[in-house]
Amino acid sequence: MRLGAVLLASGAGRRFGGNKLLAPVEGVPLIQRALEAVPAELFCRAAVCSPYPEVLALAGERGFLPLYNHRAREGISTSICLGLSALWDMDGVLFAVCDQPYLTINSIIHMINAFRDSPASVCALAWAGKRGNPVLFPAELFPALSALTGDTGGSAVIKAHRDRLLLVEAGSPAELRDVDCPDDLFPA
Amino acid sequence: MRLGAVLLASGAGRRFGGNKLLAPVEGVPLIQRALEAVPAELFCRAAVCSPYPEVLALAGERGFLPLYNHRAREGISTSICLGLSALWDMDGVLFAVCDQPYLTINSIIHMINAFRDSPASVCALAWAGKRGNPVLFPAELFPALSALTGDTGGSAVIKAHRDRLLLVEAGSPAELRDVDCPDDLFPA
Repeated sequence: MRLGAVLLASGAGRRFGGNKLLAPVEGVPLIQRALEAVPAELFCRAAVCSPYPEVLALAGERGFLPLYNHRAREGISTSICLGLSALWDMDGVLFAVCDQPYLTINSIIHMINAFRDSPASVCALAWAGKRGNPVLFPAELFPALSALTGDTGGSAVIKAHRDRLLLVEAGSPAELRDVDCPDDLFPA
Repeated sequence: MRLGAVLLASGAGRRFGGNKLLAPVEGVPLIQRALEAVPAELFCRAAVCSPYPEVLALAGERGFLPLYNHRAREGISTSICLGLSALWDMDGVLFAVCDQPYLTINSIIHMINAFRDSPASVCALAWAGKRGNPVLFPAELFPALSALTGDTGGSAVIKAHRDRLLLVEAGSPAELRDVDCPDDLFPA
């Protein structure tokens, strides 16, 4: 089975001010934490979609295919579609966002194993029965994913295929926590 | 200097009927002729943009990055933009179409050499002073190329930068001839 990964690294982070993916959490930039939690080596092919050359350069150094998203401002669907352009021949693709600083490689491995056991499912990382990111989609759903428009993400496809949803429990609730602004991590 | 190549392989060939890129010319499918005339080995990175899995599979075997263009029906600009997503960090990118069965590798090498001598130019293959394809664009023009929409191709960018145009003479006029339908090659 050939599995791919797409890191969605377009996070404009308006509330954050500037490119939040380069902001450090415990001394390590968010993007670097994401590249380590979802390493390219676990996958047949892995891509990072971003409008930031600095982010793409880091991704390239770590074995990811760096894909410049010229249309990032049009919304997350453009990153999903771009990533799938390079991973169209995989049996499944994991989509991860890059603002979950406590995501662990262990959870990614659990997701991959769950999908290998149940290759028609949509595997989502979860805590206490509540779905979060990343999500691993089977090839059957690539057409639906690549038909998304604007700022609509994979949730729309999951909702249309609820019967396929398989929750994979994270190691801790912190893994699913996303960072929208510095105060999310370091409250005054 | 880092040079890339994009083969635009979306040619729906409505007049042709079916996928003209798989139609043989002198026993060799058009796409294979293109992959041989513009070999990936001449470039730092080379991609093929296409909505045809068969075409992408052949491209992958020959060292090209195969990029599935989900939006091919929206026009050639979508292939240009997709190709540039993977080649955003090159100093120049050559764009070739795949329906010029008599294009030669010699002409591609001449174009690369001309661009290396004149790296701000737009190098276009030509015959008798008339511009054709492929065209090699410098990085300064990538933003203009990726901003194209619909079925507008690189010609619009060339027209806006006429002062940069550098014609590279082909070995014969046949090299620039494109195939729109079988009768173009085999008249009754």
